[in-house]
Amino acid sequence: MGNVIVGQSGGPTAVINSSLAGVIKASKKAGIEKIYGMHHGIEGFLKEDLIDLDDYIQSTADLSLLKRTPSAFLGSCRYKLPEIAGHEDVYEKIFEILEKYDIEYFLYNGGNDSMDTIKMLSDYADLHDKPQKFMGIPKTIDNDLPLTDHCPGYGSAAKYIATSMKEIIRDNESFGAAKPTICVVEIMGRHAGWLTAAAALSKGPDCSGPDMIYLPEVTFDVDDFMAKVKQLAAEKSSVVIAVSEGVKVADGRFVCELGQSNDYVDAFGHKQLSGCASYLTNLITHETGLKSRAIEFSTLQRCATHLSSRVDIDEAYNCGYMAAKAAFEGDTGKMVIIERLSDEPYLVQYKRYDIHEIANVERKVPKNWIINNGTYVSDRYLTYASPLIIGSLLPYYANGLPKHLTLKNKAKKD
Amino acid sequence: MGNVIVGQSGGPTAVINSSLAGVIKASKKAGIEKIYGMHHGIEGFLKEDLIDLDDYIQSTADLSLLKRTPSAFLGSCRYKLPEIAGHEDVYEKIFEILEKYDIEYFLYNGGNDSMDTIKMLSDYADLHDKPQKFMGIPKTIDNDLPLTDHCPGYGSAAKYIATSMKEIIRDNESFGAAKPTICVVEIMGRHAGWLTAAAALSKGPDCSGPDMIYLPEVTFDVDDFMAKVKQLAAEKSSVVIAVSEGVKVADGRFVCELGQSNDYVDAFGHKQLSGCASYLTNLITHETGLKSRAIEFSTLQRCATHLSSRVDIDEAYNCGYMAAKAAFEGDTGKMVIIERLSDEPYLVQYKRYDIHEIANVERKVPKNWIINNGTYVSDRYLTYASPLIIGSLLPYYANGLPKHLTLKNKAKKD
Repeated sequence: MGNVIVGQSGGPTAVINSSLAGVIKASKKAGIEKIYGMHHGIEGFLKEDLIDLDDYIQSTADLSLLKRTPSAFLGSCRYKLPEIAGHEDVYEKIFEILEKYDIEYFLYNGGNDSMDTIKMLSDYADLHDKPQKFMGIPKTIDNDLPLTDHCPGYGSAAKYIATSMKEIIRDNESFGAAKPTICVVEIMGRHAGWLTAAAALSKGPDCSGPDMIYLPEVTFDVDDFMAKVKQLAAEKSSVVIAVSEGVKVADGRFVCELGQSNDYVDAFGHKQLSGCASYLTNLITHETGLKSRAIEFSTLQRCATHLSSRVDIDEAYNCGYMAAKAAFEGDTGKMVIIERLSDEPYLVQYKRYDIHEIANVERKVPKNWIINNGTYVSDRYLTYASPLIIGSLLPYYANGLPKHLTLKNKAKKD
Repeated sequence: MGNVIVGQSGGPTAVINSSLAGVIKASKKAGIEKIYGMHHGIEGFLKEDLIDLDDYIQSTADLSLLKRTPSAFLGSCRYKLPEIAGHEDVYEKIFEILEKYDIEYFLYNGGNDSMDTIKMLSDYADLHDKPQKFMGIPKTIDNDLPLTDHCPGYGSAAKYIATSMKEIIRDNESFGAAKPTICVVEIMGRHAGWLTAAAALSKGPDCSGPDMIYLPEVTFDVDDFMAKVKQLAAEKSSVVIAVSEGVKVADGRFVCELGQSNDYVDAFGHKQLSGCASYLTNLITHETGLKSRAIEFSTLQRCATHLSSRVDIDEAYNCGYMAAKAAFEGDTGKMVIIERLSDEPYLVQYKRYDIHEIANVERKVPKNWIINNGTYVSDRYLTYASPLIIGSLLPYYANGLPKHLTLKNKAKKD
């Protein structure tokens, strides 16, 4: 058996390193001699920037710390391989490097754009009768990969969003009717509303949940939004609204672009960019005089490993393990998918699916899961998402803060 | 012995309810018959809006859940009592309500503005020979109360800030040199830099910490900032900077006001407000072409009870307990303070201090704790703050999310 290489690609998640841990474990079990990491994905690989994972991960304790480490341990990239035709040199170089390091198994962990890398490389190998195996490991907080029930990374982001929403709603309620506040929370997901929908998970016996939830799957109407906000503000002292960063008005512009005209520059002539929550809260305060507050979760929602979901961590690990196992069994040109067997008890199995059906395809929230004239998600969504946020993997603490594994500190060799 | 009333005032914290738990425990121990809560502080009290805490807290389990509940359980307010002279009616009303409910002990939990309430009421009682006792319980994430070593609420906010900074720095490093990103993180504290300083706690063997830290105690120079950012960007692929929301330029304007001129309105004629991080990242991208990202912790830093510090939780509880105990012993017109006995091992004791020395006074970060030409904090700060973030109090989870105690759900009576 040859060696293994594994890469991380696209936006990091809270659990991307659990998939890496799964790959390492499966490789050790299969008796693989060398496990390489790509430093900054395929982009680093092309520069022959490889990491010998033995330098960092020597023990079960190292693997356990890796699972508790946010963001891409190996470094990530956003890099798309060119078409094969006309760029054979790029592919020849990649296969040269693979041969030089005796790498037989190539595993890539990412979202729909990153799966393109697996597609291109397995296509090239097929075309040129190369023996290497290429397998994709799903990963994206956006949860927009097709065919898999859901994506590793989503559950932890959803847990972060729902937990923070509960805390924000309590905070927003604290001043009561004397100081009513409209809080607009902006959540990631340019094209798919899965992350924003997770705000609904906050609703329960001890939390009223957000008052409205706006997904990018539904056209956003500013006037209608303002009318609804005014009505809520007349009825309630605390109004909390979840809005996707990707909401668009009928003419196709993002809401966050509405405030930007050519005249819209500051005293230095700089064009000021702001998010959609910032735009909407300014509008609310201007039109109603009410206090409003914009909160953006920003990268916090994809890097908060201190609040990861145990289900998500385990599934990310399993996807990494299963992808490596599939490659060792001779499979190639596929991604591991999660198939849900039942909602309750929550049960899944792992399968492999042709990468051509997955790369570059986006899956959105089904239209019939969006209710209340586009301002909330249905119980069907809650049934789908609730199992994904269960359980915790507690950080290892040192000096009161979660400990992480980093490339800066090589493990001591035995 | 008469009854007890307790109120929560000002911006909530992650541990404000631990102080409430301490008051309840001390009151039960002293054999107090009725423990009332003010619904939305003194503002609600003036409307005779009282909560019978027996309706909500019956057991040790309820008290434990209360400690794990973010934001003001009783509801908060921002309300300053008027001068006594000329407003005797307000004070007469307050004492009428106290007498009506047979309340002998009045406890108020808040920051420097809120301590004014204790000052005014104890002054009035003194003036009119009233028997009631008034004690203050310190609370503020801003950590700007004088005389006490630090304030309950600060440690948990600092732990949230330091943990999130570690996660953000890892996220920001993930793309490496190919996509250098400047991340500016805006942290609360209009006048005092204690919270922003906490970003320095993220530095350790597994984290380089923020590259620069800007406190409101130092005049902010935009040109100098830009020059430093450009230099850092030339040297590093990831630059992360912590900035207080309260930084001001030499002419006294807040940095967040710099982008706002009368011309600075959007297409609808709305004046667009943005934070200082948003202003600075726009400036960075405009002047350097580099990718930049603004992150505001916003209310997340004061409501993230899921990440509270055990030391902070315990000290908040003790301050509440000690204030009640002091009142029962006949003390009045004082606030409980924390006195540090040693940094290592970390030891404190609790004392009582004249409220007149505390109300309306702000304590800032000492100038000699600020180093590197106003862009970092010294080891002295780290020695001071490190013990305050130690330990955790894990949430109670239900369906994957932290459970909270709320006024919506009355406890079942035995």
